[in-house]
This record gives sequence, structure tokens and C-alpha cells, in this order.
Amino acid sequence: MKISKDDLTLISNTIKCISMDAVQKANSGHPGLPMGCSDIAAVLWTKVLRHNSADPKWANRDRFILSAGHGSMLLYSMLHLTGYAVSMEDLKNFRQFKSITPGHPEFGHTPGVETTTGPLGQGFANGVGMAIARELAAAEFNSADAAIIDHNIFAIVSDGDIMEGISTEAASLAGHLGLGSIIYIYDSNSISIEGDTDLAFSEDVAMKFSALGWHVQKINGHDFDAIERGVAAGRMERARPSLIIAETKIAKGSPNKEGSEESHGAPLGEDEVTATKKNLSMACIEKFHVNERVYEIFNGINALHREEYGQWKSVFDKAMESGLRKKWDAFFSKPDIAILREKLPVFDPSKAIATRSASGKVLESLFKELPGFIGGSADLAPSNKTFVKGFGSTGKRKIGRNIHFGIREHSMGAIQNGIAYYGGFIPFSATFLVFMDYMRPPIRIAALSRLHTIYVFTHDSFFVGEDGPTHQPVEHLAAARAIPNLVVIRPADGEETKEAWLAAVGRNDGPVMLALTRQDLPILRKAGPSGAAELHKGAYIIHEPEKSPVITILSSGSEVHISVAAAEKLQAHGISARVVSFPSWELFDKQDEEYRKIILPAGMRYAVVEAGIKMGWEKYAGGDAVYITMENFGMSAPANVLAEHLGFTTENIVSRIIAAKS
Amino acid sequence: MKISKDDLTLISNTIKCISMDAVQKANSGHPGLPMGCSDIAAVLWTKVLRHNSADPKWANRDRFILSAGHGSMLLYSMLHLTGYAVSMEDLKNFRQFKSITPGHPEFGHTPGVETTTGPLGQGFANGVGMAIARELAAAEFNSADAAIIDHNIFAIVSDGDIMEGISTEAASLAGHLGLGSIIYIYDSNSISIEGDTDLAFSEDVAMKFSALGWHVQKINGHDFDAIERGVAAGRMERARPSLIIAETKIAKGSPNKEGSEESHGAPLGEDEVTATKKNLSMACIEKFHVNERVYEIFNGINALHREEYGQWKSVFDKAMESGLRKKWDAFFSKPDIAILREKLPVFDPSKAIATRSASGKVLESLFKELPGFIGGSADLAPSNKTFVKGFGSTGKRKIGRNIHFGIREHSMGAIQNGIAYYGGFIPFSATFLVFMDYMRPPIRIAALSRLHTIYVFTHDSFFVGEDGPTHQPVEHLAAARAIPNLVVIRPADGEETKEAWLAAVGRNDGPVMLALTRQDLPILRKAGPSGAAELHKGAYIIHEPEKSPVITILSSGSEVHISVAAAEKLQAHGISARVVSFPSWELFDKQDEEYRKIILPAGMRYAVVEAGIKMGWEKYAGGDAVYITMENFGMSAPANVLAEHLGFTTENIVSRIIAAKS
Repeated sequence: MKISKDDLTLISNTIKCISMDAVQKANSGHPGLPMGCSDIAAVLWTKVLRHNSADPKWANRDRFILSAGHGSMLLYSMLHLTGYAVSMEDLKNFRQFKSITPGHPEFGHTPGVETTTGPLGQGFANGVGMAIARELAAAEFNSADAAIIDHNIFAIVSDGDIMEGISTEAASLAGHLGLGSIIYIYDSNSISIEGDTDLAFSEDVAMKFSALGWHVQKINGHDFDAIERGVAAGRMERARPSLIIAETKIAKGSPNKEGSEESHGAPLGEDEVTATKKNLSMACIEKFHVNERVYEIFNGINALHREEYGQWKSVFDKAMESGLRKKWDAFFSKPDIAILREKLPVFDPSKAIATRSASGKVLESLFKELPGFIGGSADLAPSNKTFVKGFGSTGKRKIGRNIHFGIREHSMGAIQNGIAYYGGFIPFSATFLVFMDYMRPPIRIAALSRLHTIYVFTHDSFFVGEDGPTHQPVEHLAAARAIPNLVVIRPADGEETKEAWLAAVGRNDGPVMLALTRQDLPILRKAGPSGAAELHKGAYIIHEPEKSPVITILSSGSEVHISVAAAEKLQAHGISARVVSFPSWELFDKQDEEYRKIILPAGMRYAVVEAGIKMGWEKYAGGDAVYITMENFGMSAPANVLAEHLGFTTENIVSRIIAAKS
Repeated sequence: MKISKDDLTLISNTIKCISMDAVQKANSGHPGLPMGCSDIAAVLWTKVLRHNSADPKWANRDRFILSAGHGSMLLYSMLHLTGYAVSMEDLKNFRQFKSITPGHPEFGHTPGVETTTGPLGQGFANGVGMAIARELAAAEFNSADAAIIDHNIFAIVSDGDIMEGISTEAASLAGHLGLGSIIYIYDSNSISIEGDTDLAFSEDVAMKFSALGWHVQKINGHDFDAIERGVAAGRMERARPSLIIAETKIAKGSPNKEGSEESHGAPLGEDEVTATKKNLSMACIEKFHVNERVYEIFNGINALHREEYGQWKSVFDKAMESGLRKKWDAFFSKPDIAILREKLPVFDPSKAIATRSASGKVLESLFKELPGFIGGSADLAPSNKTFVKGFGSTGKRKIGRNIHFGIREHSMGAIQNGIAYYGGFIPFSATFLVFMDYMRPPIRIAALSRLHTIYVFTHDSFFVGEDGPTHQPVEHLAAARAIPNLVVIRPADGEETKEAWLAAVGRNDGPVMLALTRQDLPILRKAGPSGAAELHKGAYIIHEPEKSPVITILSSGSEVHISVAAAEKLQAHGISARVVSFPSWELFDKQDEEYRKIILPAGMRYAVVEAGIKMGWEKYAGGDAVYITMENFGMSAPANVLAEHLGFTTENIVSRIIAAKS
């Protein structure tokens, strides 16, 4: 299909006009980026991107990420023009209640939106995750006869994305791994919210990315030919990710706001919209006008896409018939947890084991049973117990299922999100619980976007010991539980750890975080459905006294076994204490009221024993419970000394409960 | 004083031996770094660093940051040898309960420790903050006659520091500002916890830092002359920060563990310690042995330091006498809050104003009244209302009190910590509340290390509106309140905002975070001690019904005015409702029991109205209160539409309370 320069100009101007109109109608939004990048978009969506709006989840589509998510009208415009289920009415409802065109792109909310972006740098790193998934998928599914997976990962990234540290982290890893499928276009408009980027940003971006192992080009971002040539060169380069630095003018075409920060995050104003349309020779009377020629062009392109798609589909179907189906389904179907449970290790009840180590044992089986199970640590694998031999690992220009993320927690989380967005894989990541703080932004997005990601956070309390307060989580369980739709599980022993992993692998509407111990813990529960599998209820009775209980101790993780020991000793003092193992608030809150009342009967007295801050436990235990929790930072000392000092001993639980009774 | 190569070798070997011994005795710790960097330390502390152990807080000392805080025994060894109050007994108590030699260096805990490090990348960025403070201090205090401030900022940074994104952010800003006082030595030992750094890290660090505007050298980190020359060149370079890439061997000198990741984070073992000492010709019988010659050398150096210090002191004293004292005290004394209050604006009670805008007005006065008050935003100043004209600003090779941090929240927080460590300044930073997640690690360290830092987090709820859930904080107030020793204040109007600023500026034992609105709010309180100054109590009665209250509405920030309106309407329904403005849990928790019982009397029924998650409010309101809070993410729509949908309206408060009563 022949697309002339005039056609490209018309498309570009159409994007500008729709974007201006939508922002103006919403009376909020960001016109600057869509107008500055409309020339790039016109080329990408007519000459570059391979996708099929009739099958938005086509496994071999090119991925496009708008890392600078505030420019969402650019993406919505293109989804509309290329036939996705984004109508003109949807564009008119930009930023309105329950519209599919929210202020920033949201994955799962709008057909064709690949990633949730807005918080800067996230999309940049998401693409690195997608490229890792792509390489693994290609290695699994491609054969000499069939190139099932051979697409690329595109993104438009902004000055803000480049400034954020997460992007350098992700870029360093992408360069190291040699992720040639990445082609990012950097919308270098030299404008940020406070004004010219020169206020805070004068690094040599091209040199930096070269140092990180990228293929770098500089182009004029308003020259259609240069854009096309740049992208073509990026596609040719298979051994390195590509950065195309496109010099652009923000709000290009606006007579009074082109090149100004004023166009970034506010409507241009009716007069300026009119003036801009006139300037672009787009002075149509209607708002949201699309020239028929534009629809015609994209209809033609869509027809070509469907033809390509059909060709791919016949290759794919043939491969599926010739034996690929089983493997494909192993990646793309949800695992059956009951079957999986049978494949996991059973822990020797006589041997104490740290839950991080139990997790390590479980991981060996998960790697074996689930081909799409991949992940790794931010350089703490020997401590997190997350490296599983025999399944390959990443390295210089090398991809494997064990990922060495390097000391880059923030990008680890966002790369993991990218793998989850991609589909077919269950990605996990790992670090110390205290360093969860380094990666909260991507965890929040995983929760918001209902991604199936799993976090292995070990060294989950002051029991870390000598490393001291910088390495001892105190507020982190509370801060994790605060994130909506994140399931937090803190198992009490090896068997609960196994069940926690099954809960994590089996979840289908959001992320799961495991909080695991550094130190050994006794095995408290038998394996299986009538034993530790009660974990799936979030809280369950793990110790019942002989007589009817007068107090219930709620406890999680490494404090459960001392709580049970305390309950046993309290018997001798004439106090009947029940112990509830309470590994997960979120799983418990999903139980029916009947069950919740069994665990938390009215009129019961409660104690809470958890090596973290009290905050939030009042919901279950009330304000007048006995709280054996922490309210301050830890300190550097051997763990047993700290346990004494902080009161996390059987003896202290006993004496606190006796004291509270009298 | 003549120090021979043999002397340097003896010092280096002494550091190695003390470090090995201490780690071995503690049976935990990191011997690899102190042994790999002992040659560098020997040169730095004999030939480079200018300080005075008799006055550890000397304003013109060189700062030394061990960014790779796990190598703490290196720093403790040097503090001991150079005469700080770190005794041999303290070294023997390494990592023990209540020792001054914790696992990672903690500011305020050990004389001579400049920064709390351990979480990687923080120290790197702290130094950038110190260098900014140094430039501002030099500009204020130096004159043609007196170079009061002319020191440098040194750090040892590790592979992990370089990999973390925060360091690139900070390095980019340091290069932009041309911070020539920075001289960082990169301990490039090519080993991380998972093994060779080649697993995940193959970027060209020298090229990257050149791109960021740094002066870069590569040296052999075990060649004393090369180290000395490298540092000298770094000191000569005044227009750019310096990175000296020192190639080293981790655990240098250990026959079996040199160059191996095994030496990073675990004792070498008694046999290997003995073998290493033999290998170093340091086979003394005693553990923790220091040759008398080593003490002799450092006594000599200390004498020289005190001479230099004396010379500086006489210049300083003369300058103080000649008029510097007033200015110096203005920087180094705590402000008098009562006096300061009189200088701040009074808000027109008839004019609604967003608390971010009220904050902006207050900032204009604070910049004027407090010469050490500095800060800025991560490129959101126009939204955060934090730029104050007339006080200079940062730019290319330019320093001013308004700091343009760029889109780099994480390093902003750590740079701010660096300014606070430096002394003489009260630094603030700003971004949207939702992006607090990008900077939690430095906020946690500020709380742990009791730094006087202030956070201006605006757009503090779903009232952000159209930008949608990626930009709407929900869990952030709870997650902030979870951090021990962070005071969180969410003022309800302009006058409370002013008082919140006074509380922030006046605090002396930790950080304060302000949560401020995007949207306008009516002025509810009169100015002054009998009015909005009640904010300092954390919670106070803002509306009292005619008859004795049957319910108390606890509310904060933008929800207080609708709570008051609801209470007024409830009167007509025969329900007497009191309203408590509850801007700060932490300030309230510090009040005496009597006051707390006035606000939260037993037997009262409660409602909570806050545009965030409920978590933790149960502590004050109990489990059966009426909760008008959120349990899920927000969405993109105009704020007033969301307020209706989510129930944050006067009408909904009224109907929920009526419904709860019946």
C-alpha cells in the first residue's frame, strides 16, 4: 500500500487534532507529547508495527509501550485509527468516569494497551522484561520451519524516563543481555514541567547508552524518512537494543505553545486549538474530525496486517498440530494446584528449616513442573535461595530461566511486570524484605494491573540479626499489606511455605508476596490439604488448648512456633490459649463470615505476636489486645539477643499474657 | 611526616587483620571489602583526608562516606587508628548488642561516621547532597580573606552502588552542577554476591560517567602511588566531580579467598585468617593486634591535623569576630517557632485555597527568614508550589537555594539526606504523594538517623482526579505512618498548613512529611496559638455540637471541611456530632494521656473520614466505627465525580452516620 508524505502529514495532523480536542473537552490532560510525537506515530503505525486489531492478544504482535504514559491520547488515537475497540465516543470520553480512555494508559482496561504507564521509567523497564520473555519464548517455540515468535518491542520514552534511575538499571541489563528486539524512540523534546531540561539535565544520553551497550542513533523526530530509516536500522541490529534519539518539538504545530512547557500538562485553550488547526491546514469545523482518507489508509494497512497474521496463523497451526500444542499449553494454561502439590517436596517434621530454604526446595520443583516459571534475585540469590541449577541462567548476551538481575531492585520489579504483561510466563523476583522499599512502584502497578507476579522477600524481621536496622524490616509487612490487591503471605514453617507457593502460583488476579525467614524454624504442620494447606484460608487454628480457650494468640511466620510453645506453657498456669497461624490478611479477608467468626469469635480476648509494627492488627484483635510487636527500628546484635531484648520469646509471651490477665 | 611504603603496607595489613579478626569474632560480617580497600584507606587516611578526631563535627572537615556500608570494619578500623572515640574494645564488640560498631555504619551512633549506609546507592547520593551544601556554605561564609569552607567529599563506592539506579540519577545531577568537591573511589573488584559481576554487569562505567559529566580515571587500587596520584588529580579538578575507578581484588591477601565472592559476606574462617596473616607477614599471636608503629604514624598525622585545624580555627574566629557570627548562627541555630510564626502569612478566611498553594505562600516566608532553608522538587515545582523566586536556583554549573532535582525522586531523597547530614541547612523535597514510593529508602534512613528533612507531598488523594489511579495515592498515608519516627502531617486548611510547616521546621529528632491537596479548601481555623496552632497536638476538636456529642468524626486534610458540614447537618437530624481534625497520628501519640482521653473519650462512638485506606485508624476509632475510607485504587475521572462515587461528600457522611445509628 502506497502511503505518501501527504498521507503521513494528514495522519500526524489528525493525531494532533484529536489529541488537542480530547484534552480540551476533558479540560485536563497532556497535549504536548501527542503533538510532538505524532510524526513518529504516523510512521510507526503505518510502516513499522506488526499487529492485528482483530486479535489484540496475538502472541507474535509487536509490543508498543508508551512509557511516557501522560501522552495517552497519542496511544488512544492510534488504537482508534487502527481498528481496536476504542471508538470515537471513547475518545470523546477521555478522562471521564468509567471510560476506557483514562488519564494514563491502564493495562486490562483498554484493548491494545500493553502496559500501565504514567509513573516514569516503568514502561522503559517493562519493555526489557518483554524482550527477555520474547527471547525465552522464541527459544522454546521456534523451529527451523516455524518462526512463531519473531516480533520486536517498541516504546516511546521521554526525558523523564531517561532521567529516572530505573531506566539506567534496565538499560544496563538490556545491553548486557544483548536484547536486540528492543527499539526505543526517545522523544527528546528538551522540555520538562519546570522548564527547559537544561535546568537539571545535561548528560550526553547517546554516550551513556553506548556505554550501556546500546545501538544509538540521533534523528530529527519530525522527518518521516529519518524516522523510517532509524527504525529500519534498529530492526537490523539484533545483538544490541536500540535507542533512537529523536529530536522533537513539544506541541509541534501550535503557533504559541510549540516548544514550551506550558503545553505539557494542560489544555492549549480553545483559541490556541483553533489557531493550531489553522496553522496545520486542518481547520475543519467539527471537533474530533478524522478525514476519510485516514480511515481508508488504516483499513488498507489492517488488511495487510490480517494477511500477515493469517500467514503466521497457518504456520502456527501447523506447528501446533505437529506437536507444539502440549508445550504451548504448558506455558499458557493455569497450573492445577492439586496436581502440582503432589510434585512438591514434603519436609521432614523432625528437621528445622528456614522458610527461605524451604522455598528454595519448592523452587526446584516449580522450575521443573512449570516451564514458564522464571525469575531470580537482585544479587542475593545465595541468601534468598532462589537460584535453581539445571535451567539455564542469564549472562552476557545469554538468556536463561534463572535471571541475574544485578543490584537493581527497582528495575527488577518493573522487568518482572514486563514479563507478566507478555504472557505465558510466571515471573518471580527476590531480595531482602527491607529492600522491598526499592521496588514499591512496580509492585503497586502489578497490584493495580492485576499482574501475576511473585515476590520472594527473605530476611523478614529483626531476626536478620547483626546486619542491623538498615537491614531489618519493621514496617514492611504493614506497608505491604497497605497496597490494595497485593496478597502478602508470611508462612510459619516449611509446609506453610510450600502452600504459600501454591497460593502464589495459583493466583490469577494479582501479585503475591512471600515473607520468608533467614533463620531455621521447626516444622509445625503436616503436609497436605488437612494440614498446612489450611494456609489458603489466610488464618487457621494451629493449636487448640484442652479446655475452651480464654485467649487467642494471632501470630505469623517465625513467631508462630514460640506462640504455640507459650500456649503450651500457659496451660500449666491455668490459662487456655488458642493459637491461630495467621499467614495472610488478604486470604483471610476473602473467607466467608462464618469461617471468620470461628477464627475471631466475639467476646474472645486476643494477643498478637509478630516481629513487626502493630499497625492494622487492631482490625482483628481490637485495641485492648496483648501486643507483642515492635514500634521502632531494630539494632545490630545476634538475633537471639535481640529476641530477648524485644520480647520475642516464649517466656515473654507467657508472662505478658499472665500479666494481662491479672 | 615521612610515611614510607613499608608504613603504608603495615597500615593496610593492620586494617586487614583487624577486620578479619572482628568479623571472625562476631561470626558475621563482610571481610572482603575492608581487605580489598585497605590499600586505598591507608593512602586516604595518611595522605589525603583533612579532619580532626578531637572535633569530629569540624565544619571544614573532609567528609568520607563508605557507600558500601557492609565494609564497615574498614571505617571503624580507621576511626580507631585516627583517634576517634572508637576503642579497641569497641572493635572487639563489632556487631554486638548496644555496641557503637554495628553491622552497617549508623549516623549519630558512632563518632566520625558521617552517613548511615548499607542500602546500596544511598551513600553515593548523600555525597552529592553534601557537595551541594558545601558549595552553598562556601558561597555564604567564604571571603577574600577567609576560606572557611574548602573541603572535599570522598567516598568509597562499590559495584553495587554503581548498579543501583539512584547513583546514576545522583551522578547525572552532580555532573550537571559541576560539583568539583566530589572525589569518589570506585572499588571495582568485579565481584558481587552471586559471583562475578559479569553475570549481570558489563557496562563501560568510565564511559558512562564521562557521559554524565564526570572526570574519570582508572587506576590499580593496590598501587599506593597510583592511588595518591589519582586522588591528587581528582582534587585538582574543580569543575567536575571525579570518579577514580580502582581495580581491586576482594579479600586481597587471603590465599584461598582473594577474588572470590565467598569473602564478601561471611567470616573467612579461623584457618584462613591464620593463613592470611602468615601470607601478609602479620603472623602476630594476638588478635586485634596493632603494631606500635601504626599508632605512632597516626599520632604524628593527628598532630599535623590539629595544627591545620588550629590555623583554620584562628581564621574562622577572626571572621566570626569581624561579623560572620550572626550569619553563622542563622544557619546553625534552631529557629524560634513563635517568632517565625509572626513572619508567616495569614490566610484570608473568606478565600478557599489548596493546601499546596498555602504551602507555597509559607515557603516564600521561610526562604526569607531561614537562610539555610533550601530544596525543591523532582520536576513538579509548578504543581507542588515549591519554587520561590529571588533566592537563586541550580542550573548548569550553578548552585542556588531552589534545587531543580530533575525527574529523579530516589536520589532527591538521598541528596536531601546528604544536605541534612552536612549540617547548617534544613532541606526539603517535593513530588506527588503517590511518588513517595520512588523515594521510600532515603525517607526510611532519614527516620532511622533522625535527620531533619521535610517532604512536601502534594496531590494527596483521589482528588487528583483525571490523572487516574497511577497518580492517586490510596495506601500512601498508611504506608508513611508505618515508618517509625517519621512525622506525617495532613493539614485541613491554609492555617493548619502554616502550622504544619512550623512543626516541620521546628522538629529536631527526625523527618516530617506534609500531605497537601491539589484542590482548594475553605479556611476553617483562625491563625495563631488559640486557633490552627492546635495542630501541634496532632488532633483537636474543630467542631463541637450544641449538645453533648454522641459521635465523634475523626478526619484529616481535605475531608475535615465536609465532616464539619456533615456535623452541622446532623444537628437537624437530632444527632450531635463532634469533629476532630486529626492531621498527625505521631504528634497526637506524643500528647499526655489526659489530652488523648479528651479527644478520644471511652464510650464514644466514632466515624473516620479520610480519602485513603482505613488501615491503622482502628487504633483510635475501634473496629465498629463508621469508616468512610477507601479499600481499592482510584480511577480516572473529574474529582467531584469520584467524590460522589467514593462517598466523600457531606451527604454521604450524614447518611452513613444516620444509617449506623438506626
